[in-house]
Amino acid sequence: MSQLSSAAVDLVEVIRGDTVESVHRGHAVICDGAGQIIEAWGDPATMIYPRSSCKMIQALPLLESGAGRALSTAQLALACASHQGAAIHSEAVAHWLADMGLGEADLRCGTHMPYAEEARDDLVRAGKEPCQLHNNCSGKHAGFLMLSQHLGAGPEYVEVDHPVQRAIRTAFEEATEMDSPGYGIDGCSAPNFLTRLDALAGAVGRFARAREGQGTRQDAMARLTHAMGAFPEMVAGEGRACTDLMRAMKGKGAVKTGAEAVFVAILPELDRGIALKIVDGTTRASEAVIAALLSRIGALDAKDPVVERLTMGPIRNRRDMVTGRYNVVLGS
Amino acid sequence: MSQLSSAAVDLVEVIRGDTVESVHRGHAVICDGAGQIIEAWGDPATMIYPRSSCKMIQALPLLESGAGRALSTAQLALACASHQGAAIHSEAVAHWLADMGLGEADLRCGTHMPYAEEARDDLVRAGKEPCQLHNNCSGKHAGFLMLSQHLGAGPEYVEVDHPVQRAIRTAFEEATEMDSPGYGIDGCSAPNFLTRLDALAGAVGRFARAREGQGTRQDAMARLTHAMGAFPEMVAGEGRACTDLMRAMKGKGAVKTGAEAVFVAILPELDRGIALKIVDGTTRASEAVIAALLSRIGALDAKDPVVERLTMGPIRNRRDMVTGRYNVVLGS
Repeated sequence: MSQLSSAAVDLVEVIRGDTVESVHRGHAVICDGAGQIIEAWGDPATMIYPRSSCKMIQALPLLESGAGRALSTAQLALACASHQGAAIHSEAVAHWLADMGLGEADLRCGTHMPYAEEARDDLVRAGKEPCQLHNNCSGKHAGFLMLSQHLGAGPEYVEVDHPVQRAIRTAFEEATEMDSPGYGIDGCSAPNFLTRLDALAGAVGRFARAREGQGTRQDAMARLTHAMGAFPEMVAGEGRACTDLMRAMKGKGAVKTGAEAVFVAILPELDRGIALKIVDGTTRASEAVIAALLSRIGALDAKDPVVERLTMGPIRNRRDMVTGRYNVVLGS
Repeated sequence: MSQLSSAAVDLVEVIRGDTVESVHRGHAVICDGAGQIIEAWGDPATMIYPRSSCKMIQALPLLESGAGRALSTAQLALACASHQGAAIHSEAVAHWLADMGLGEADLRCGTHMPYAEEARDDLVRAGKEPCQLHNNCSGKHAGFLMLSQHLGAGPEYVEVDHPVQRAIRTAFEEATEMDSPGYGIDGCSAPNFLTRLDALAGAVGRFARAREGQGTRQDAMARLTHAMGAFPEMVAGEGRACTDLMRAMKGKGAVKTGAEAVFVAILPELDRGIALKIVDGTTRASEAVIAALLSRIGALDAKDPVVERLTMGPIRNRRDMVTGRYNVVLGS
């Protein structure tokens, strides 16, 4: 029933010296704005957990309900973020919660050390522990809390039967045009709904085609895509692939990574959506393939330094010697 | 010629909820002490870089030359280590270098933050940068320097034509009973010689069969295997798979990980050597498979907590909820 397809294809070679040392296989789909497949690698029908790649879909009810009407563009980007817990992220979430009369203890995302090295080291030097504000999903959860407050629902907003998650499931199935066959619990405790890769690509294709003034759904999709592209540093952080790729695209689209090597892209000017999954769950490979696909369809130049870094490396060692490189294999 | 074989088989499923989210493929070989294949998965003839899994082979010339005659058992373990830069590791390497009249600047392994969280945080709190002593390979490099000093050779001991690396290549090709078709440069700047997976398994099988008093080669092999098993905390560190697996085996064998998901095991009582490579280079999978194989051949009990943790998980999220598990697929 709900299967990760075994019909994956080699997508990334990791080369040391002159020899392939490791290989990543995966599935990738490029759709147009109607959800029609334009090009695919591996099995477009493979079932996947989108993980954090679908945060812009999870944010649809926040806007469509009216709950998020007063949110700033930066806050909308943060609602779609897997941020690295730098001060700009954790402070923005703290202010957002305070504006709602809520606090860190109302979050249900759990705690982990911020990925941002500076933020981590600041905590260590201050002898402080991280809190839920540093969780990479805290912006999404602030959005969940805002929707929950708007709906007058209870505090356990990550439970699958909670009105927030029911609204998200409905939006998710509408955007993907497919009933989800089930769900798993994500790292941040929210349900994450299974879908086919081509259905996820179709959903982000619909985000790409959405225009403001064409109804509630398209308004929400267009605003979220714009917000991510306008505030790339809020979606991830300095040095991260999502932020770097969106900066390189100069606001002309949005990209989003998900755990276990999922990646999506929303390209409004090109009327394209992309979704991919590396079957072994390795981020270096999902980053290489999304960069290569963005270059392939003309969203970024192959010579863009971000594209070159993510698709080729080079791989350097502890003395900064070049020891290898990546090779993305997409065929001609 | 030097190819990572595409005939890998599924070895580890990563499951979230009830659904396989990611899959790791690989190759694995179990040999006896004569290097004969007892059982294999995938393609035993696949070409691989052993990376740090072959550090006990790289340490053979240190003993066989007589250079390391006076080394303690703990120092021999450190010469085979990918340690996490905890105080017990970096201080032991500092003392070893001082005993030779050398210092940190003589190392050529490069610098990285220690993997041990406490050591990392100590540096941050003290406002200090890491040094080459924290490099996971610094013990191996202390051994290289000791051999170099013994040979009266020059300071650039990681160059492929340096007498140290020439001696290592000879020992490596003898232990694997195969001419290496080439090399890559490792993370620590030393050459890492390509070999077939079954040849690497044969080499560690020969380590397993080696007994002291049977000549220089067997003396060196037996001493190094004993040293790793006797000082598991020197080979990796607290919480690391190598250390935990060797502690669980109570000194009855040695295991060693290598970057890009290589793992080997030396089982003297069982007369077995194991070598495996996960093709995507993911450590969670190489750890799961080595633990499962150690259990399969009777080196560890399937109910051992270390085996259960590495082979099954469970996978927990940021609120310590169980969200999934691993499933090692070896067949019956």
